[in-house]
Amino acid sequence: MKIRTIATSLIALGFSAGIGFAQSNEPIQPVKPASQINLGMVELGKKLYFDPRMSKSGFISCNSCHNLSMGGTDNIPTSIGDKWQQGPINSPTVLNSSLNVAQFWDGRAADLKAQAGGPIANPGEMGFSHTLAIGMLESIPAYVREFKQVFGKDKISIEEVTLAIAEFEKTLVTPNSRFDQWLLGKADALTTDEKAGYKLFKETGCVACHNGPAVGGASFQKMGVVAAYKANDKVEGRSAVTGKDADRFNYKVPTLRNVEMTYPYFHDGAANTLTEAVDVMGRLQLGKKFTADENGKIVAFLKTLTGDQPNFALPILPPSSDKTPRPTPFGK
Amino acid sequence: MKIRTIATSLIALGFSAGIGFAQSNEPIQPVKPASQINLGMVELGKKLYFDPRMSKSGFISCNSCHNLSMGGTDNIPTSIGDKWQQGPINSPTVLNSSLNVAQFWDGRAADLKAQAGGPIANPGEMGFSHTLAIGMLESIPAYVREFKQVFGKDKISIEEVTLAIAEFEKTLVTPNSRFDQWLLGKADALTTDEKAGYKLFKETGCVACHNGPAVGGASFQKMGVVAAYKANDKVEGRSAVTGKDADRFNYKVPTLRNVEMTYPYFHDGAANTLTEAVDVMGRLQLGKKFTADENGKIVAFLKTLTGDQPNFALPILPPSSDKTPRPTPFGK
Repeated sequence: MKIRTIATSLIALGFSAGIGFAQSNEPIQPVKPASQINLGMVELGKKLYFDPRMSKSGFISCNSCHNLSMGGTDNIPTSIGDKWQQGPINSPTVLNSSLNVAQFWDGRAADLKAQAGGPIANPGEMGFSHTLAIGMLESIPAYVREFKQVFGKDKISIEEVTLAIAEFEKTLVTPNSRFDQWLLGKADALTTDEKAGYKLFKETGCVACHNGPAVGGASFQKMGVVAAYKANDKVEGRSAVTGKDADRFNYKVPTLRNVEMTYPYFHDGAANTLTEAVDVMGRLQLGKKFTADENGKIVAFLKTLTGDQPNFALPILPPSSDKTPRPTPFGK
Repeated sequence: MKIRTIATSLIALGFSAGIGFAQSNEPIQPVKPASQINLGMVELGKKLYFDPRMSKSGFISCNSCHNLSMGGTDNIPTSIGDKWQQGPINSPTVLNSSLNVAQFWDGRAADLKAQAGGPIANPGEMGFSHTLAIGMLESIPAYVREFKQVFGKDKISIEEVTLAIAEFEKTLVTPNSRFDQWLLGKADALTTDEKAGYKLFKETGCVACHNGPAVGGASFQKMGVVAAYKANDKVEGRSAVTGKDADRFNYKVPTLRNVEMTYPYFHDGAANTLTEAVDVMGRLQLGKKFTADENGKIVAFLKTLTGDQPNFALPILPPSSDKTPRPTPFGK
């Protein structure tokens, strides 16, 4: 009897302060803050992430296309690479990318560390090479000291470079979205329309692919299930990795965390707005034409997935030394 | 008698703690921290400074070429503009630029506010227009609210945009360099070689142009006084502004604050190292060939001019709305 009274009081208390019980049976789970992080590695990786000397031109850094001021993306359909080359695919957000089953749209990198080395040496992206990047870093005494402090080695290799960048990227999670506050028990964190949008999101089947803490990122799925998708690009997705015809036009399901900030949408960046993206997804993946009201409610729900953005001081990079090879943005 | 005793004690105390009297008769004065700053305007200006949507491509922000991670420069000889166009002149540092007599190498902008509008609308730089930039900002509710909060107006114009950017740039001063600590009385802030370098800097005449708190920035001077400078570019300096033949090859004397970070040097970015820059300056401006020892000491002095770098959280930009025109990085 006494236990019952306490429980009743707690419920009353909870409701009056807008605090309810955590939603434990939902297909989406809250994003957790980063843990088990090596802070020295994070600080080094943050510098590398922001250092345009990791590119041939001295102009393009990881942050150029995965801009942490803009949801970890560049907000253009496909990225700009060395000498203004047009990239083949939309830059996915780096935010919460540690939660992905694999990296890149086709999953060709198993993890963040394997991904980090890719763009540096891609002629269409940063246009550099691992050897040249290491040579640059080894010519800068402050970098040499910091690598030594973090890894305890005199030599720098691409192994340590990508480990540090990946460790920094692990910190780029975005907890505390209004949706997560609701999941964790703050009953009034969502409006009626937002809750109705979430209900639609579950009942119509969006959640079949967009689930888990990242609301996506956990599987590869075909783009164009019910009807074919007419893409703006020539890529064929997962089959480029597996060689299997069945994997043609299969792509990693993108995370919907911070989706309000990560426009334009899809692997070809063809959808400019969430309204358009929800409409295309409904028709092509679910065979369902959402009404304007349904679409609006789902979009309202999606905007509750914006979490705490990265919060750190702009890193100051150690200056090049007289021995540092200079970037070659023009010619050669 | 008592006053004398106290003074003697203070001197003794000062010397034992490495604190001496301030150097009050020096031709270089300490950089002062920013004051009389409108913080709301600074926060808005900081966002605008980092926002690549101020460019046609959506890829180039003020920070692209005046990178606050790298001494307020891009560390390449001449900058990369829209569609990878090669700029005509080296990007000067934004650090301490509020101390300059005028802005740009040829002084064509009277102040930071007048400067800020230039690159946005320059077809070779950000390639946008003021009208398009305002249209972008007015389509984003969070920007509209912030402009209203700061300026108390419903409409945004280039006037408020450049005022806010300039106010942010006024905060980009770099006090507390080791040289300034020495100027302010910390006798052991400089090594013997650094002090010897400063003595040479004064006695050989460098200080005739590089003086004041910015160690430059206060006057226009001819590049190539004793012997002509063979530039890598075709610009003719101040005469483009005044129309006077006497101003040909006159340029604003660059600040030497943080010069260790602002390589490469000169208006054409032709000198890669401080050693080279000091050598060229000695021969062409002073008719003096510095010995390796003299050059080394002057360079050691110059490296004491690196002050506290900007220290603030990376700004998070408000996302575009459905009405925001999308950038056009390719084509058109």
